[in-house]
Amino acid sequence: MIERPLQRLARDLPGLRTSDDAADRVAYARDLWPRHHLAVRAGNVAQHRPAGIVWPTSTDEVARIVRWAYDTETPIVPFGAGSGVCAGVLPHDGIIVMDLKRMTRWRSLDEEARTLDVESGQMGLPLEEDLNRRGFTLGHFPSSILCSTVGGWVAARSAGQCSGLYGKIEDMVLALECVIGTGEVVTLHHRTSGPNLIPLVIGSEGTVAIVTSSVLRLHPRPSTRAFAGFSFPTTEHGWEAMRAMFQAGLRPAVSRLYDPFDAMLARRGAVKKDGADAGKTPGLGAAALRSILRRPGALNELLDGAFGSKLLGGSLVILIFEGEGDAPQRDLEQARALFATMRATYEGEGPARKWLLHRYSVSYRQAPVFAAGLFSDTMEVAAPWSKLRALYDGVRRALGEHVFVMAHLSHAYPDGCCIYFSFAGTAAKGDGVNSGAGWDERCEITYDRAWKAAMAAAIEAGGTLAHHHGVGRSKAPRMAHELGAGGVDAVRALLRAFDPKGILNPGNLLPPCSPQPYLDDAHATEVRA
Amino acid sequence: MIERPLQRLARDLPGLRTSDDAADRVAYARDLWPRHHLAVRAGNVAQHRPAGIVWPTSTDEVARIVRWAYDTETPIVPFGAGSGVCAGVLPHDGIIVMDLKRMTRWRSLDEEARTLDVESGQMGLPLEEDLNRRGFTLGHFPSSILCSTVGGWVAARSAGQCSGLYGKIEDMVLALECVIGTGEVVTLHHRTSGPNLIPLVIGSEGTVAIVTSSVLRLHPRPSTRAFAGFSFPTTEHGWEAMRAMFQAGLRPAVSRLYDPFDAMLARRGAVKKDGADAGKTPGLGAAALRSILRRPGALNELLDGAFGSKLLGGSLVILIFEGEGDAPQRDLEQARALFATMRATYEGEGPARKWLLHRYSVSYRQAPVFAAGLFSDTMEVAAPWSKLRALYDGVRRALGEHVFVMAHLSHAYPDGCCIYFSFAGTAAKGDGVNSGAGWDERCEITYDRAWKAAMAAAIEAGGTLAHHHGVGRSKAPRMAHELGAGGVDAVRALLRAFDPKGILNPGNLLPPCSPQPYLDDAHATEVRA
Repeated sequence: MIERPLQRLARDLPGLRTSDDAADRVAYARDLWPRHHLAVRAGNVAQHRPAGIVWPTSTDEVARIVRWAYDTETPIVPFGAGSGVCAGVLPHDGIIVMDLKRMTRWRSLDEEARTLDVESGQMGLPLEEDLNRRGFTLGHFPSSILCSTVGGWVAARSAGQCSGLYGKIEDMVLALECVIGTGEVVTLHHRTSGPNLIPLVIGSEGTVAIVTSSVLRLHPRPSTRAFAGFSFPTTEHGWEAMRAMFQAGLRPAVSRLYDPFDAMLARRGAVKKDGADAGKTPGLGAAALRSILRRPGALNELLDGAFGSKLLGGSLVILIFEGEGDAPQRDLEQARALFATMRATYEGEGPARKWLLHRYSVSYRQAPVFAAGLFSDTMEVAAPWSKLRALYDGVRRALGEHVFVMAHLSHAYPDGCCIYFSFAGTAAKGDGVNSGAGWDERCEITYDRAWKAAMAAAIEAGGTLAHHHGVGRSKAPRMAHELGAGGVDAVRALLRAFDPKGILNPGNLLPPCSPQPYLDDAHATEVRA
Repeated sequence: MIERPLQRLARDLPGLRTSDDAADRVAYARDLWPRHHLAVRAGNVAQHRPAGIVWPTSTDEVARIVRWAYDTETPIVPFGAGSGVCAGVLPHDGIIVMDLKRMTRWRSLDEEARTLDVESGQMGLPLEEDLNRRGFTLGHFPSSILCSTVGGWVAARSAGQCSGLYGKIEDMVLALECVIGTGEVVTLHHRTSGPNLIPLVIGSEGTVAIVTSSVLRLHPRPSTRAFAGFSFPTTEHGWEAMRAMFQAGLRPAVSRLYDPFDAMLARRGAVKKDGADAGKTPGLGAAALRSILRRPGALNELLDGAFGSKLLGGSLVILIFEGEGDAPQRDLEQARALFATMRATYEGEGPARKWLLHRYSVSYRQAPVFAAGLFSDTMEVAAPWSKLRALYDGVRRALGEHVFVMAHLSHAYPDGCCIYFSFAGTAAKGDGVNSGAGWDERCEITYDRAWKAAMAAAIEAGGTLAHHHGVGRSKAPRMAHELGAGGVDAVRALLRAFDPKGILNPGNLLPPCSPQPYLDDAHATEVRA
């Protein structure tokens, strides 16, 4: 009988905490990729179970495990809190998942330079709360902050809700300690000359190295905030105002633009406190929703047009400035004066304060949607301002043929911004109807068609395929479109340089090597293969 | 007879502009590395002459030349305007220098997103002036702006005088088109997910790829400025004020702190208009200077102590804020109020305005110093604020035993800053005196001892070896101290991934592969080898 990988690991490196218990293997079989929820809803929980899980407690243990994996050619997938949404974690029974959540130490806090060296398994919200008590903030507030780790943020190149002021995680990392695919420990500093290697590891999603600790830049905890909401006749009026604001040098911690439908939800306080029916469109039952969503095209056209704008009350921008003394209020007044020249209507502090109260609720909205026989997902793309109109229209149209779409813009920069599409759907009329497929599989067909069309539209418009959710196996097959063949080869060469045997999260991030399978097939086909 | 490399290039790829004229080969034999000036002063101009020079006019030509170099295993050194100071260019007669100054096109200017795609050979000052006429600024003002190119800035990871507001060149680059060591053209975008490869090429000093064009972020040309100078009792009082200012969120375009001696020069307007005797200490002849500088220790101690501070008038901080309307003046007043609590004495606008008038004069100060039988150089190191005192004292003491030292701080950040040491020396008493060496060689001995001691001190204090002058062959042998052995291996693996035959500027950036030659030898020994 062949020894199973986890048993061999336990025998070769005694003293580690490991498990190949069936319940643990199911628990670590996936992240929050919505497509996989469809498989689970169909009762398929056997797929993608790893060989086992290992919980190291130190960099030395991580290095020994990776060295062992290198010697035995056993693939390893690092794991934080499992809240990724792009199938960055999708193991099989030859893979060992390495959960880093037992590595949570603060190695050093330098109050003078305002930096913190913290291990990868540190969870998001406790970190921020502990920093607050010491007078600091990291300034990183992903909506997943309750279910994500520092290591996960770095691996996935995360952006938080206050990126306008504090930047993305890549702007916060001054040094990384990590273990590369040979088991060697390498510490990368934000040096000031020569190439900077930190950006190679940030966003590499477990394929270049396993991050064990990060030195993060801190900020003083802000003592004052200023809030405002503004409506605009259309979404485009809203983003022109966002552009003007960022190009004028204003840096709101939070600036969010909602299209008319998303704005209507935001105004009504879409996420209810008890969470039980969060995510539902208020007032509609599951059956009615399923029926409407089987033909989403007309609904999208209606709500996205001028009529919809009028009906729903236009687009909405919320702003929160934060800092010291009266500076936030002064900045807000400058933004308000600017917006007043751009067809804005001031809506008071309410919308922004309401948003702040519910800022982390979104991560709990998936379950009831799926329970209603529907599916939902999000797609965040980005482009320079000059390509934004084409990207917005193109992706909206492509998705809108298959699913119901709404959009908001929550990360803006002087040169461009991210568009965040939220969509909900069900098996569309006609999709897989004569194939003998069950409901969940028919949902998968519609889901894949929507994604395929949307990614093609994003590429066509000159946008990126992602902004802060990462690449994962869900977008990897299409990366050649964005990077170009030369870019894919360059990244592949880098992966080989750090992980010569390809044991770190294989299959993630890049398209497979076989000749151009990503050019025409639906992305899910290769993920399954 | 063996065909020489340039002749073969001209034969294999007809139509290119090339030269192996003796005068051209001397002209392209080096950059502005001061140590090499000593060799030239000794009459040695034959060393380091390349096989020839090629001037491509397009990315396609660059790619064809590199492909040819790959096939024939001919090393290539990309060349901008030759103003590097760390021996990033130091060819030999088997090397072809590729001068990119015929590639100067603006490929596209996106006024909405505020970006410019410009080829590598574009010279600095004309670029900024042309942008100004269109209402923009790049915000990049290295003191070498008159003698450096966009490609050189990117390759060397340059910082300009306004880095406090606009950042270093790495903060300005949104995309790079480059040719890797196989001759393939790769375009790297500042994407938003997955690893970011741009930082690999920035600062790689011609070893990873030849940059052919860059997409740069632009800013509106500022319409107003505010100026101020402040004196402080000591240099440390000055940097504590700089730290407080940056940590309070203020972002002066220019903030410079001078130690008492450097401050005295700045107050007197050290760089005279005619430039003829620029760089000399006012009022002293060359012979007197040589005599004083043979025993610099006592002078350094005198001027760096409390007595010197008193004699020379303390340290000096100059600030320039820039932007729109009254914002610069408001920010300046905030800084002034902050400084007032930290033992600052306001000195009016004069020192800052005077600095602005002479901002680019420094690149012309070397020649008269060397003509006087002396040498001068600069060393820019960086550290977190918490290590700054140790770095400042350590490097100052180490240099001060061999040369006369002054210092200023011209690039600050919330978490730390750069210290810029300027030093001048001559053959120190005792150095090489019984070796039969000539004056210039004895100068080289002192020069090498000063550098060796200073780099050891910077490492000892936990600082970096460089901030914005790059690594070059002058610091490459010591990079293992800063990167660690694992870091050097990682960078080496990356270079191999992009340049499998090692034809791109070989010998630059990293220590040689032989076992740890960089640990004990003077850096120059390996450079010669």
